[in-house]
Amino acid sequence: MPERPLNYVIAPSTANDGLTRVVQGINDTGAVQQIVVVEERPLTIFLNGQEIVTAMTIGDYPEYLALGFLHNQGMLAQDEAVLGVDFEEDLETVVVRTDSTTLFEEKLKKKTRTSGCAVGTVFGDMMEGLDQVMLPQTQIKTSWLYSLAAQINQTPSLYLAAGAVHGTVLCKRDRPLVYMEDVGRHNAVDKIAGWMLSENVKPGDKIMYTTGRLTSEMVIKCALMGIPVLVSRSGFTAWGVEIAQQVGLTLIGRMRGRRFMCLAGADRLNWDADPSAIADDKVIRRSSDE
Amino acid sequence: MPERPLNYVIAPSTANDGLTRVVQGINDTGAVQQIVVVEERPLTIFLNGQEIVTAMTIGDYPEYLALGFLHNQGMLAQDEAVLGVDFEEDLETVVVRTDSTTLFEEKLKKKTRTSGCAVGTVFGDMMEGLDQVMLPQTQIKTSWLYSLAAQINQTPSLYLAAGAVHGTVLCKRDRPLVYMEDVGRHNAVDKIAGWMLSENVKPGDKIMYTTGRLTSEMVIKCALMGIPVLVSRSGFTAWGVEIAQQVGLTLIGRMRGRRFMCLAGADRLNWDADPSAIADDKVIRRSSDE
Repeated sequence: MPERPLNYVIAPSTANDGLTRVVQGINDTGAVQQIVVVEERPLTIFLNGQEIVTAMTIGDYPEYLALGFLHNQGMLAQDEAVLGVDFEEDLETVVVRTDSTTLFEEKLKKKTRTSGCAVGTVFGDMMEGLDQVMLPQTQIKTSWLYSLAAQINQTPSLYLAAGAVHGTVLCKRDRPLVYMEDVGRHNAVDKIAGWMLSENVKPGDKIMYTTGRLTSEMVIKCALMGIPVLVSRSGFTAWGVEIAQQVGLTLIGRMRGRRFMCLAGADRLNWDADPSAIADDKVIRRSSDE
Repeated sequence: MPERPLNYVIAPSTANDGLTRVVQGINDTGAVQQIVVVEERPLTIFLNGQEIVTAMTIGDYPEYLALGFLHNQGMLAQDEAVLGVDFEEDLETVVVRTDSTTLFEEKLKKKTRTSGCAVGTVFGDMMEGLDQVMLPQTQIKTSWLYSLAAQINQTPSLYLAAGAVHGTVLCKRDRPLVYMEDVGRHNAVDKIAGWMLSENVKPGDKIMYTTGRLTSEMVIKCALMGIPVLVSRSGFTAWGVEIAQQVGLTLIGRMRGRRFMCLAGADRLNWDADPSAIADDKVIRRSSDE
């Protein structure tokens, strides 16, 4: 595995910048002990004048989180002209402003009139967007996957410092680019999406690595982002697998040491690595969390 | 640790009853392999005529899930007369019917009229309910905690069979009573709440054990359910700890083998166990999931 220096575009923040806090408790021996825990804050996301959701987040990159969330929920089209994203720290709100009223707002008004409910639309809208997804046939070397897993597991992170967060890493070939963490695994993905939209990053040659499970929502988000490969050290749900097969996404889970399982899109894989050369489990585990 | 037979009121379902599925993939050696994964299905919850949310669930106990969800979100008061809970499998819906229009429906109508949004109310309503929470000073022996953790970890479960689910167990003293699992850790808690409401089970002498992290929402749910003790093998968020301290809930996390951390309500604990007699880590781990 490469020992070259890690050069992330965005690496996890491990400085004490308000994302963690020291709290005091009593341990199993009855002794007073101090431990580091992650912060968790509400952030209410608005689309123009419309309140959309209150997310629980560690609090970094609120603008990316809002932008990515709205896009990944199908509430903001790829080509929607975003005029601004305004974060108000004291109000714990972030407002995404578009050029004109979005299709979603129109739909929401109608839905609210007919059934009085805005919540139920969310999932249906996400599935709808899947019809238009076209994922390129990017080839992926298994040696890249092993290298990525090793680099990511060895990167200093909030997870290693305080636990109780999930991480998502945007990668290209064998290089991890942007490593986001959050209380909710979906927030970490949404922050990646927000960064990609803001920086106009093309998704077709990227790989998304997540510490979280490969559920339907995770697979849908990755597909809507246009990223053809999703990798996790955690497991699968049947529906996550089904959707990945439908949209032609390469879905790899249970990636631990030399082992992994590919349950969709295996045709993108190029088995260039010798698994017997890989240590059986390189994950640095916190004993305190899962 | 006790080796007596486990006598759950509800134990995890490990029969092949539609909660898991065998899927075929390709492993790290390039060989075709079959693995077991959990199902994940949408379930849309209605309160009378009002669509509330679409939850992603493994699909067991939909009635308990709906009832518990509505109660834990503060949408259904403890004393609300529930006339019926109707699950329609083919429609993937469950409707909870009450005697008269609930306060929540009134509030939602008003909220929808003023801001057009129903989603944002949810969290505020949960926090509101906390003011009235009174948790009894039930004493908890640390020997019970060790015994519970050992029994729960050794119980055959969907987690051990297929991974990618979280478990929540309602316990009394050193006995695990009801063990629910689901894709979302909140669903498992909500199913416990629904069972307690249906069976009119008193919460004051219970302990809730969860495999998931101790976030604000998990702590709020436990407090609203009236259960004074929440235990997890996972970690904490700062806000989860803060709320537990405010409402006087005993919050124990990072419980692994002989170790645990109590970050709130340690005055309920009676240190009767000898930690040195406990094996260092009795958790049966799936290597494939976290």
